[in-house]
Amino acid sequence: MSNSFSRRNFLQASALAGAGTLLTSSLEAKSPDMILDKNSIGKSKWDLDTPALVVDLDKMDQNIKAVHTRLQGTGVGVRPHVKTHKSPAIAKMQIAAGALGVCAAKLGEAEVMLENGIKNVMMTTVNVSAPKIMKAMGLRKKHKGFIQAVDNPQNIQDLQDAAKAAGIRAEVVLDIDVIRRSGVAPGQPALALAQMIDKMPNLKFCGILAYDGAVQHVVGFKKRQAQALKTFEPVVKTYDMMKAAGLNMEIFSGGGTGTYDIMSVVPGLTDVQVGSYVFMDRQYMEIGGANNETVFDDFAPSLTVMSTILNNYHPGRLTTDSGAKAFTLNKPTPFVLGEPDFIYNAGSDEFGTITFEKSNKSYKVGDKLEIIAPHCDPIVNLYDVIYGTRGDKVVSVIPVLARGKSQ
Amino acid sequence: MSNSFSRRNFLQASALAGAGTLLTSSLEAKSPDMILDKNSIGKSKWDLDTPALVVDLDKMDQNIKAVHTRLQGTGVGVRPHVKTHKSPAIAKMQIAAGALGVCAAKLGEAEVMLENGIKNVMMTTVNVSAPKIMKAMGLRKKHKGFIQAVDNPQNIQDLQDAAKAAGIRAEVVLDIDVIRRSGVAPGQPALALAQMIDKMPNLKFCGILAYDGAVQHVVGFKKRQAQALKTFEPVVKTYDMMKAAGLNMEIFSGGGTGTYDIMSVVPGLTDVQVGSYVFMDRQYMEIGGANNETVFDDFAPSLTVMSTILNNYHPGRLTTDSGAKAFTLNKPTPFVLGEPDFIYNAGSDEFGTITFEKSNKSYKVGDKLEIIAPHCDPIVNLYDVIYGTRGDKVVSVIPVLARGKSQ
Repeated sequence: MSNSFSRRNFLQASALAGAGTLLTSSLEAKSPDMILDKNSIGKSKWDLDTPALVVDLDKMDQNIKAVHTRLQGTGVGVRPHVKTHKSPAIAKMQIAAGALGVCAAKLGEAEVMLENGIKNVMMTTVNVSAPKIMKAMGLRKKHKGFIQAVDNPQNIQDLQDAAKAAGIRAEVVLDIDVIRRSGVAPGQPALALAQMIDKMPNLKFCGILAYDGAVQHVVGFKKRQAQALKTFEPVVKTYDMMKAAGLNMEIFSGGGTGTYDIMSVVPGLTDVQVGSYVFMDRQYMEIGGANNETVFDDFAPSLTVMSTILNNYHPGRLTTDSGAKAFTLNKPTPFVLGEPDFIYNAGSDEFGTITFEKSNKSYKVGDKLEIIAPHCDPIVNLYDVIYGTRGDKVVSVIPVLARGKSQ
Repeated sequence: MSNSFSRRNFLQASALAGAGTLLTSSLEAKSPDMILDKNSIGKSKWDLDTPALVVDLDKMDQNIKAVHTRLQGTGVGVRPHVKTHKSPAIAKMQIAAGALGVCAAKLGEAEVMLENGIKNVMMTTVNVSAPKIMKAMGLRKKHKGFIQAVDNPQNIQDLQDAAKAAGIRAEVVLDIDVIRRSGVAPGQPALALAQMIDKMPNLKFCGILAYDGAVQHVVGFKKRQAQALKTFEPVVKTYDMMKAAGLNMEIFSGGGTGTYDIMSVVPGLTDVQVGSYVFMDRQYMEIGGANNETVFDDFAPSLTVMSTILNNYHPGRLTTDSGAKAFTLNKPTPFVLGEPDFIYNAGSDEFGTITFEKSNKSYKVGDKLEIIAPHCDPIVNLYDVIYGTRGDKVVSVIPVLARGKSQ
């Protein structure tokens, strides 16, 4: 791992083409909600109190553009998943870059997005409890761009009743089962539910979604491609059956950061639900891409955690202030930029422990490190703000308004 | 695992003795800061929107009392670690039960405690950056009960300078290295630093702390006891050296939930830094106790996550709404109360997946589950509130005021 995952690979990964207008320039506007921590604006990221979550705005800008550039001409659009960044400010940049709308995993996330200027939000998770169903239909009444996923007959009936009570005709999509986690079985069971929705007076059937969470991190592009397309075959057949039955198939959503350029060949697919591409993380970098077998470098790692060294008494060993409460996961291990031989253990709640045989410099207590996270989604969910930087300079403080919205 | 860790063991673990005044009754006071979510008061916990973090107040009450009961007559006090619950309301209960004060792992936690009525806070982590040192000494100027840990000479000098600038004499304790993560080496190096602190005009040397994080989860009481006492020998020698040198040894703090009844025999020890004992979790239940080899049942599991079933299409399989963003860790796996054969996988960000061969009832979509967490500390750090229950009824909503205070 530490051999193939060298600093050179990181430099390659950072050297993406990207030009034109800066999407992220809006983040530098001096609007009050952008600046939760005025004192940090203008500081070097190396002077931030730590642990601090930092995003390189130029890299994020490149990433947001890159997915559209790559999909140009395929007819497939982008519906980014906000569960990754939980921030309306970043969702707005995705929309500005041409996204069709966004996906939300939790009703609380959808609410934060809709109430903060994002018009089109598709909830990819079913809402099955009475309070959530009522809240979802209330959101739809207020925001016409809200779309709800369903996967079972009782839930369809419950949504119909709630939509009727709210006096609306609510848009719904059917979630198709790919990895036995959510959704209804493809083929006849899915068709039957689609037709059931289509007959409901207060629901509008808008198509299907199918997310293959298991294939996203398969290492090796060819292997991932083969597995992704094979697993998707029953979904494609289901799409064809529904199309033949005359159902409205305006949405056929699927694919994530690991398969966005694979799923784009699926006939009828309208959009990919990419999430991690804005930030990238070590999990995704390891899977390899179409153009680089070792590192998935379609997108640049833009998200890092700034950390401080607290103890250096033992040779080949450093303790930092960033443990499990700064990183959540410890697998793959966090990656210290500039020190490919460092092995970082974030398994302890409050401390990170680094072991190494060689380092590129010697480290004092108080020195800072910049670290790429194992997996971006749960990390963002720990922090109230992300510091936006250009070069080393903090130029914005991005509120993570949907942090903790796990309901 | 599922055999030994049966429901009967859980029932035993819940059947702790506990009587007298309810410490938790203060949580039912109708003060505004206790009720962030008025609508939930009086509801059954089974009707809460999910994922929801819930604490059984009667069990927490028992736990907070039990540690004092067990240590009665040993001369060793209790200085609970607030990194576990991050809530001043719970810290107040610990103080009311007789705790000497509390420990904090992060300066942000210490600040929240001191600013919310907790008078005595010992920071067990060094603060090495200039802004943190200044903030720490500012807190000490305002709150006389603040004690700061140190472990290196530069930091001692920096604290001296900051204390002088603040016009105070600040209490400090020396952190002694036990597991090569924090602290200065025991013996002569520690003595030299203690004497250095003692000579500083604006610092007051108050003793030592030594936390053996590695031994807390050693499975088997005898094995844990032997390892804990052996690892602690150099610390005890260091204590003796300092005592002989005439240093002020009013604090000798060490031991956690896994070793509180082991370390209490250490001569000179003033207090144990128990944290998880208030809530317990699956990690700690598995280690076995002095009186029960299979389940560590000195304390009852009081903290659970309420979760909703979203999908039941596949036999022997259920999907819930509680994944990594509800549990953080997936090892050991979360434990579904009443279903010892369920294997819960919280490895996915948004969904939990349960597989089972047999279940005690059949489950519909929308049914709720109550789940014991793998490890309490990082989970609490995800939630803004903990719902306090008596029986099934929600009687308070406890704010987790230091959530996200990782700095």
